[in-house]
Amino acid sequence: MADFEHAYQGGTAPSFAAMEPLDFSHYYSRTTVARQASSMKDFYKYFMIPGIGNLAGGLPNRKYFPYDTLEAQVAQPSRWVATPNDPNALAEKLAAASSVKKKKSDTSAPIHMTVPHGAKSSNPLTKIDLDTALQYGTAQGYPPLYSFLRQFTRDHLQPNIPYKGGAEIILTVGNTDGFSKTLECLSNPWNPDHDWIGEREGILVEAFSYPNALGAVRPRGLTVTPVAIDGEGLVADGPGGMEDVLANWDTSLGKRPHLLYTVTIGQNPTSGVLSLQRRKELYAVCSKYNVIIIEDEPYWYLQFPSAATLEAMARGTTPPTPVAHTLGKSSGYPYLDSLVPSFLNVDTDGRVVRLDTFSKTVAPGCRVGWITAQPNIIERLLRITETSTQQPSGFVQSMLAELVMGPQVSLEEFKKKSRDDQASFSGWKMDGWVRWIEGLRGSYERRMQRMSTILDDGQFYVKQGTPNKAADSEWAVISKTQMYSFDWPRGGMFIWVKLHFETHPLFSAVPAQRLAHALWIFFTLKPYLVLVSPGAMFSPTDEIREAEGYKYFRLCFAAVEEPEIERCSNSFANAVQKFWTIKSVEDLDRIDGDADSYEAQPELMDLSSIMGC
Amino acid sequence: MADFEHAYQGGTAPSFAAMEPLDFSHYYSRTTVARQASSMKDFYKYFMIPGIGNLAGGLPNRKYFPYDTLEAQVAQPSRWVATPNDPNALAEKLAAASSVKKKKSDTSAPIHMTVPHGAKSSNPLTKIDLDTALQYGTAQGYPPLYSFLRQFTRDHLQPNIPYKGGAEIILTVGNTDGFSKTLECLSNPWNPDHDWIGEREGILVEAFSYPNALGAVRPRGLTVTPVAIDGEGLVADGPGGMEDVLANWDTSLGKRPHLLYTVTIGQNPTSGVLSLQRRKELYAVCSKYNVIIIEDEPYWYLQFPSAATLEAMARGTTPPTPVAHTLGKSSGYPYLDSLVPSFLNVDTDGRVVRLDTFSKTVAPGCRVGWITAQPNIIERLLRITETSTQQPSGFVQSMLAELVMGPQVSLEEFKKKSRDDQASFSGWKMDGWVRWIEGLRGSYERRMQRMSTILDDGQFYVKQGTPNKAADSEWAVISKTQMYSFDWPRGGMFIWVKLHFETHPLFSAVPAQRLAHALWIFFTLKPYLVLVSPGAMFSPTDEIREAEGYKYFRLCFAAVEEPEIERCSNSFANAVQKFWTIKSVEDLDRIDGDADSYEAQPELMDLSSIMGC
Repeated sequence: MADFEHAYQGGTAPSFAAMEPLDFSHYYSRTTVARQASSMKDFYKYFMIPGIGNLAGGLPNRKYFPYDTLEAQVAQPSRWVATPNDPNALAEKLAAASSVKKKKSDTSAPIHMTVPHGAKSSNPLTKIDLDTALQYGTAQGYPPLYSFLRQFTRDHLQPNIPYKGGAEIILTVGNTDGFSKTLECLSNPWNPDHDWIGEREGILVEAFSYPNALGAVRPRGLTVTPVAIDGEGLVADGPGGMEDVLANWDTSLGKRPHLLYTVTIGQNPTSGVLSLQRRKELYAVCSKYNVIIIEDEPYWYLQFPSAATLEAMARGTTPPTPVAHTLGKSSGYPYLDSLVPSFLNVDTDGRVVRLDTFSKTVAPGCRVGWITAQPNIIERLLRITETSTQQPSGFVQSMLAELVMGPQVSLEEFKKKSRDDQASFSGWKMDGWVRWIEGLRGSYERRMQRMSTILDDGQFYVKQGTPNKAADSEWAVISKTQMYSFDWPRGGMFIWVKLHFETHPLFSAVPAQRLAHALWIFFTLKPYLVLVSPGAMFSPTDEIREAEGYKYFRLCFAAVEEPEIERCSNSFANAVQKFWTIKSVEDLDRIDGDADSYEAQPELMDLSSIMGC
Repeated sequence: MADFEHAYQGGTAPSFAAMEPLDFSHYYSRTTVARQASSMKDFYKYFMIPGIGNLAGGLPNRKYFPYDTLEAQVAQPSRWVATPNDPNALAEKLAAASSVKKKKSDTSAPIHMTVPHGAKSSNPLTKIDLDTALQYGTAQGYPPLYSFLRQFTRDHLQPNIPYKGGAEIILTVGNTDGFSKTLECLSNPWNPDHDWIGEREGILVEAFSYPNALGAVRPRGLTVTPVAIDGEGLVADGPGGMEDVLANWDTSLGKRPHLLYTVTIGQNPTSGVLSLQRRKELYAVCSKYNVIIIEDEPYWYLQFPSAATLEAMARGTTPPTPVAHTLGKSSGYPYLDSLVPSFLNVDTDGRVVRLDTFSKTVAPGCRVGWITAQPNIIERLLRITETSTQQPSGFVQSMLAELVMGPQVSLEEFKKKSRDDQASFSGWKMDGWVRWIEGLRGSYERRMQRMSTILDDGQFYVKQGTPNKAADSEWAVISKTQMYSFDWPRGGMFIWVKLHFETHPLFSAVPAQRLAHALWIFFTLKPYLVLVSPGAMFSPTDEIREAEGYKYFRLCFAAVEEPEIERCSNSFANAVQKFWTIKSVEDLDRIDGDADSYEAQPELMDLSSIMGC
């Protein structure tokens, strides 16, 4: 803790007197402790003998790979218009938002990219070709992509990791895999029929949490304990906050949890964005109770500086003062500097395991991500990877490496090329990669703005009428009933809408959960035809599901086609409006009945591809 | 057992009166039992509502994927000349082997293949495009590739699975992943500090076994018990055979093993090919002791009908009579029919879990394979996959699907195309896929023949001399000393050479292990410069390593460039020849010393990519 104070109270980078990360090997699972490094290291020197004929390896012949090249038509980094980093640059932003609604920028044309079968480079860190990418490879990742991501992570994304030597990375086949391996590394399975309750380990999660992560935790038998959240995310102090949960842990349920799973940016489902100040408070509690922080950040790059300001404008309130996050070294990019820093940047102890993915920046189908953590933990994850997934597919790794790094040619080689060849694809480079994600942020931010604007207009049920029809023909004063509320998302892909069922005419006639269920079905009926995720899906416990979950719906503004954003947003608002006019229980029954007519055809369905993350 | 006899003694397919597979849920790990299917199934019917706007899923927008197409130059299926299936067609085969040595067939030119961003098909089983392949997908695999592989497996590769309904499949990210998931599904971790010895589960392996598989088993704490092997593989009866090991299991070591891990074709490292008769014997023992058979078959397609015949010719012995493997239904392809049938084809109980991979048929860098087993086991593996790897990368899945299935166009659409377009890539189809692996078999078989021929010539140390120089100038009779022996590989990628150190001049002066180590280094010295894998690497126990492992070297004929096959094979033979002339222990010391001069540069090395499988 002393180091933490030292390093961060002044807001400077702890480049001076940084300490080694702490040893967390007492948290390694029994299986993880038992893993041994390959004894093949002893062979290293023999492979390096010049001219040696290698009959030792068990490799197929690269000549027999049926792909002679891999190619693609790829976007230029500036295909999508970026939005400003400064929340005050509103005029500029709104202008951009309106003028580029459906237009790609002038650099929208694709460029052709080729991964050759054999590249000339002898440096494994820059050689991108099928000879290497489609052969067996090292479990930490394809060297060119690994080196690019390591540089991106250490120099640009996380330039202020406080512990000595900084973090290491290892590639994964996506964050679900990254989380699964982290659990395998840092927790022991527990089973009531086999193990003593005192051995049961546990994990803390947000009070509303990503269901697939819970699906990975539950079969291992860990206790799953929700921690209170507010608009930005996990709460450190107060009832149900981190300190409260950990200080008052009931050991009859098992060990005090030593893991925290959290999505801190564009939290799924609440869209919270956790401030640096809150991170420091939470980190202090985690340090006090020795909790490992697993920070899962698929939406990291989607932080929306305009949200708070536009929300205030729409509601006639005072926009908050933006907080700067300067933390020692710059990332080298104004866009990255404008993002809230990761837990890694306050991680003096080396207790943060961060999960990054290409799923939202390139495509979910990549199935590629990476874990950032202190080197000892990464080493254990490497051992786990060697006997499970091995490295991600060479198809995607070489395509990503070629996209961001381009063909690696020396200046001399470059000069020898024809004009046409010189003008051809040369890779996005680090600048292009950052520009690409900045453009994505812009595109998603504009979608967020459109949906939020429409939903904002529909929150209230506005009643006009004559209180006494017979006696008086004048209109009475207008009554305004709030049917739902939400925060404009500060990040991510979702709007988290809270329904105020207590204002519904049938609130005292039926349980509110019944109203919630009927409303969810009502959305799917004509003319509304809109499907939203019920809050129950994100409730980590039965208690939360029953007491709170039913009040919420999660709306994703990311996936639907452009015209659908407006149609669906209006449908949502109109359906709620109409639903608030329902005054008889029979009408609720009729809604349930209507849904029974839908025919399921699960054999044609691909639920995961519809539900995603 | 009764069913087994019933179904197979007559060699007919058990299409009549087939039984349901047995229930093996008592073998599921505690974690596997605790896994629950996603509750999202309830949502199915709502997704199918016509015109529904889906705000429920958490998907990024497909328009923002930076790849507008994926493309490739790919081989035609007949690029490599096939070898005959019939071992008697030797004249034809030898002619083929000599005439095509370095020549590709006349269909060697690549064809251009494109995965479009959006394809028109509405059938998810044939729609291959980036909209679907790069989006989130179902954990069992990309529908078009999954359906192709399911058809390949059920109709062609394993057309005679005896239990009712046949087997299911699920895609993996390669066989290491497949094995890891199978272990996770079917075994509980055990730790001496935590668990009672009576709970310790176990796995049987071949007496020489694939080290990476053992690396996955060991951290889980299972007992690893070798079973005796002969030239074709696992032995059912006799000392150290399956029956012996299981019948005489010492329960003080833990439970009697309920898992068997085996590579039955081109066994790694011994290259054994397990006959159908032996499979029946082993299956009967596994059925008796209720053992699950995990059949890992990366080299399945590399079965070499010429090996036994050519070996006999080279050694002047009588070639064995080839055994036909007719088993009920034909695969539809003479090549596939000629391969030894999998354990799956005698699997009346549903106790076989088979691992297949694209690593040797397309490329290791695919990181794609599939598991074939009874549906209940596949369902549990699906649950494991959902919270770990999810499906393989959409990059490789779409590229593989496009390669084997081609663009899916109706006849009507096809007719509308220009001549050029009509002639363009239309996919390999099932015929092309089978032809491709047949061509690979041919290429590897010719490599096997070249290396075996050279090694065959070098087995003996031929001594010529005059017993009494002073008295007589005539040459004495020639003495022939066998320095090593090997079987011509019946399958796979390796030659497994046994050294006869008992014939070495220094055999009584130093331990044979010392000779083996010196010889291994001697190979790497000039002028030999050849690296082979020491048998110790493949020894599953210390006992085998010390008593037997040192006698063997594994030579891979698959990976090196064509000219290197002959150079390396000659180097191996010459080095042994020379090594057998060493008569002083000091010379052995000098060899060890020479190796010390090699400089290790591990930071530049990528060991996995050199060592492979």
